[in-house]
Amino acid sequence: MNNGNDTLARLAEVIESRRGQAADKSYVARLFSKGNDAILKKVGEEATEVVMAAKDGDRRRIVGEVADLWFHTLVALAAYGLKPADVLAELERREGMSGLEEFALRKLRDREGDTP
Amino acid sequence: MNNGNDTLARLAEVIESRRGQAADKSYVARLFSKGNDAILKKVGEEATEVVMAAKDGDRRRIVGEVADLWFHTLVALAAYGLKPADVLAELERREGMSGLEEFALRKLRDREGDTP
Amino acid sequence: MNNGNDTLARLAEVIESRRGQAADKSYVARLFSKGNDAILKKVGEEATEVVMAAKDGDRRRIVGEVADLWFHTLVALAAYGLKPADVLAELERREGMSGLEEFALRKLRDREGDTP
Amino acid sequence: MNNGNDTLARLAEVIESRRGQAADKSYVARLFSKGNDAILKKVGEEATEVVMAAKDGDRRRIVGEVADLWFHTLVALAAYGLKPADVLAELERREGMSGLEEFALRKLRDREGDTP
Repeated sequence: MNNGNDTLARLAEVIESRRGQAADKSYVARLFSKGNDAILKKVGEEATEVVMAAKDGDRRRIVGEVADLWFHTLVALAAYGLKPADVLAELERREGMSGLEEFALRKLRDREGDTP
Repeated sequence: MNNGNDTLARLAEVIESRRGQAADKSYVARLFSKGNDAILKKVGEEATEVVMAAKDGDRRRIVGEVADLWFHTLVALAAYGLKPADVLAELERREGMSGLEEFALRKLRDREGDTP
Repeated sequence: MNNGNDTLARLAEVIESRRGQAADKSYVARLFSKGNDAILKKVGEEATEVVMAAKDGDRRRIVGEVADLWFHTLVALAAYGLKPADVLAELERREGMSGLEEFALRKLRDREGDTP
Repeated sequence: MNNGNDTLARLAEVIESRRGQAADKSYVARLFSKGNDAILKKVGEEATEVVMAAKDGDRRRIVGEVADLWFHTLVALAAYGLKPADVLAELERREGMSGLEEFALRKLRDREGDTP
């Protein structure tokens, strides 16, 4: 599935190749060496940075922060033995079901138990 | 499975097509109608859910929550006139620079002002 | 205005008194009935809302959102058998050590393993 | 309002006293010198750490992370000219209204526009 035009798959391969390396070899090797909590913490952190860049309406920073967020979710996926293709397949599956309307149904179900 | 870049681009088109619709037509139309803060709040929320699914080591839920997170970042990108291709280009640019080592450099610069 | 420690302790008691109630009796009873993940999700959500209110520089909303965040951390503490007094004691302990400088030392230690 | 038994008020005073100091004098002085985004980022970060500690069921770490979260919200309040008393007054106001049931009403109103 990794043809030359699949950015996330290629990044995931680069990330995977970093996993076995010594922690001082790369940022990703270091992140893996620090363990899953360090990786997950970055996911939370980068999400907050996306929100702040967006609140500033700074489109260049939004792109950079979403790139950071996606990148760290790729590291998180790798940490749990998953690939971006797994997520993309899930997104395609939902889209296929009815043009994203499954989101609505799922969220609706979530909410029904949610209203206080 | 299609190319990942294509999947994201197609999802972004579907999201874009929802933008003008009445709020009761779809989950995405409703989210747009509620405004940018509602969209950004979802980004924060879904990041927390990724973290919780990962802490449970529940791979199926991790896939679902990362799908939710990516999906809502696509909505956020659309809200600010951006496309997944902008983020993918940024990720490719960084990868091209030196196999992700730019991340290290950038983070290092961030950190130098960061240690208390 | 009463003493802050007392306010938090009283709120914690109210929260605790809701725990055994039927889910339809109060927002807190309902939150407990939904389980720890629902409570933790609120902590993440309210933190994002604090950030957004602050980015807007809307002081009234900042107060409201920090109130929401503290409130939900009190619910989270209760869910794990903890009290605000435990957190206040920890804050006092740190303050006592050297006017918060322990924060610096701890963060410094964290960071030393952190620079990529 | 700052009697000797009000931990948050006393911490807020210590934080305020750090504000004018040189950035190398303390962790808090440094955080102020880095600006509001750095402070808000910490709020998001510490919320994620509370969630992770709770998912581990590690009560000692929950206390420490909630202490970190409350502490950084105090810094955020200070950055926007607010005090913990403002938040405590808001919490008391809500409690006074009807034993927290205003939370329910407010959330209910939020949700009514929320179900997709």
